[in-house]
Amino acid sequence: MADVVASTRPYTIAPVDGGITAPRGFKSAAVHCGIKAKAGALDLMVLAVDTFASVAAIFTTNLAKAAPVLVSKRHLEITHGTGCAIVVNSGCANACTGDEGMTHARRMAEEVALDLGCEPERVLVASTGVIGVHLKMDRLVPGIHRACSNLAHGNGHDAALAIMTTDPFPKEHAVTVTTARGPFAIGGMAKGSGMIEPNMATMLGFLTTDAQVAPALLQRALVESARDTFNAITVDGECSTNDSLYAMASGNSGVVVDDALYPALLEGFLTVSRQLAIGIVRGGEGATKLIAVTVHGARTLDDARQVARTIANSPLVKTAVHGADPNWGRIVCAAGRSGVALDINRVAVRIGGVLLFENGLPHDEAAPQAEAILKHDTVDIDLSLGAGEAAATIWGCDLSAEYVRINGEYRT
Amino acid sequence: MADVVASTRPYTIAPVDGGITAPRGFKSAAVHCGIKAKAGALDLMVLAVDTFASVAAIFTTNLAKAAPVLVSKRHLEITHGTGCAIVVNSGCANACTGDEGMTHARRMAEEVALDLGCEPERVLVASTGVIGVHLKMDRLVPGIHRACSNLAHGNGHDAALAIMTTDPFPKEHAVTVTTARGPFAIGGMAKGSGMIEPNMATMLGFLTTDAQVAPALLQRALVESARDTFNAITVDGECSTNDSLYAMASGNSGVVVDDALYPALLEGFLTVSRQLAIGIVRGGEGATKLIAVTVHGARTLDDARQVARTIANSPLVKTAVHGADPNWGRIVCAAGRSGVALDINRVAVRIGGVLLFENGLPHDEAAPQAEAILKHDTVDIDLSLGAGEAAATIWGCDLSAEYVRINGEYRT
Repeated sequence: MADVVASTRPYTIAPVDGGITAPRGFKSAAVHCGIKAKAGALDLMVLAVDTFASVAAIFTTNLAKAAPVLVSKRHLEITHGTGCAIVVNSGCANACTGDEGMTHARRMAEEVALDLGCEPERVLVASTGVIGVHLKMDRLVPGIHRACSNLAHGNGHDAALAIMTTDPFPKEHAVTVTTARGPFAIGGMAKGSGMIEPNMATMLGFLTTDAQVAPALLQRALVESARDTFNAITVDGECSTNDSLYAMASGNSGVVVDDALYPALLEGFLTVSRQLAIGIVRGGEGATKLIAVTVHGARTLDDARQVARTIANSPLVKTAVHGADPNWGRIVCAAGRSGVALDINRVAVRIGGVLLFENGLPHDEAAPQAEAILKHDTVDIDLSLGAGEAAATIWGCDLSAEYVRINGEYRT
Repeated sequence: MADVVASTRPYTIAPVDGGITAPRGFKSAAVHCGIKAKAGALDLMVLAVDTFASVAAIFTTNLAKAAPVLVSKRHLEITHGTGCAIVVNSGCANACTGDEGMTHARRMAEEVALDLGCEPERVLVASTGVIGVHLKMDRLVPGIHRACSNLAHGNGHDAALAIMTTDPFPKEHAVTVTTARGPFAIGGMAKGSGMIEPNMATMLGFLTTDAQVAPALLQRALVESARDTFNAITVDGECSTNDSLYAMASGNSGVVVDDALYPALLEGFLTVSRQLAIGIVRGGEGATKLIAVTVHGARTLDDARQVARTIANSPLVKTAVHGADPNWGRIVCAAGRSGVALDINRVAVRIGGVLLFENGLPHDEAAPQAEAILKHDTVDIDLSLGAGEAAATIWGCDLSAEYVRINGEYRT
């Protein structure tokens, strides 16, 4: 996961500051409008392009889709993947809110469009926070106008703060991709598993780039990069009503990304998204350790992902890692129930590179060494299936009593 | 779940004492042989039939099957579903133990066969406890001989104690089924989610009956009854290497169960199994509440089960119930990601009969009433999908900090 990729590839990638406003052509502003109770807490942000952007998006697969998800999906259909701005509030998910929720989500887009002088369909909407509660539009609408009148290049960090719910830290990252056609930038921010009142984890992610990319190619890069980053993480196996991932391409760098330059864009998206996705896991509710589960030697990529995901979601594996217990038996057991056909006698299990199980037999002598490794804040679990050539990594976190406290504490 | 079923059915069912030795023709004995460290703790039991029994079994679907599971499966194939005895040890799962583990599991059957004077293939074997550790055969073999020389009718309760690992209480139940052809008895015992050293949950269940039932019909009754009982519970969504469910029919009552009397046998199996299965959930690691998730109005039975299971396994729902939080949003969200096609606007959610969500909108005024209900030790979650006629119930439990402590505590 080195951040600078040189090698024989015809491009280089290097980190830069600035988050989502690192690429040229993007302005943002964040305000406190009063959706979050805490005085001064940023709870609304607008991200706008100077002119016009290609927009790609991936939405939650949950059938209980929140109003902002439904509205944004429709807007992108109408505009064929183009747009001018995204407005995001935290503190209220506007989910399970019926027709009134739909009206509110549309209104958010309309108010931004009014200020920017564009069609409402060119504005996308995202919300995160408590479910089943209506947005306080009397607070939100003035907030939108304040944000729109304060739009500026370089406000990326405030934007990353404004989309947080109980995230312990903001997640942002940016890189410059230098190609034969010149450099372009990619910025990103994300929020992870959090809640306002005990409610639900929502993942929101936003990528920006000043490369010039057609909507279809941008969508392809977003889907491909999300597969091994945002879609390769798990905090508790839940999938929210509001999960959304957006990419916007302003074109302001003048670098045209076509099929020839696509690998550079994809690698840049992967680099930024991996950083953000791992940040989400590290900031997962009650998480104290990042667990990277890598499965190789699988027959297919889907098999590798399925086994890795089952292990990363296993409460028994998660609690064992939490307690620094080199409990390879739970790992083998999770693999065995993953639904993937495998021969246990060909499976090898390593924790932090230490071999604990192979040829159907334990290596108990290695347990103390693995135990020491399990005390680190990043734990690599590695499974070799001996069935083929496919490999995949899923990032998860441990399960702590703090997770239970956060999500189960009596509502006050 | 009334235990006495009279109504218009041509049989009645009433509870009796005695557990697995309530039916005639079954003897058992339990001893401490030293697999469990604690002095005097029962860790080995033998259940034998006076003559000969039909035997049915369901084994774990986990591909990492433990040696006793593999040996018993083979024995039942050889004998076409007949047998003389079952031997069970707790404290060591004999899983992930390679060829030596297979030899040990076979040896357990051989030693019992020697004492009973039957073929080793007529003896079934089950183990539960820590994974990846070899059985101490120098302790187990003398234990087997002691148990076999102490076999007696009416030792059912000791047997239920001997199969426990960290189960907080033994699970046993028995009934008499009175039919037009006369009465027969059904007994049962089970162990649930527990561990010796922090390891893994294993479910073992044993049913006995003195009805005379052919192996195929016995297998059918076991599979059908397990579907809505042992296979309708979840503690943490894990499925062990050792899970086994057995039924033995001695025939000693003289009542022949054929197709005509099958409903009485099935209902008896359901009654005993439901009691044992709910006991397993109540005794789940760290569990403080039983959660019965009922989904009705589903298009198919599979749909109803899938939605109910997703809700019962959702860590966010489990922690909410633990904290007595009437968080219907998490329930709707879990239903939405269950993989079952449903229209959220037709879904109604009730907790303890209190309507909290309907027609896409919350009923927040009912939250305090639901909150009071959530403080009870049994919580009914009810989802109406409005899509069809199928219904199913899955029993689960809450997720507490104690679960994390039990499974994650640093191994000493």
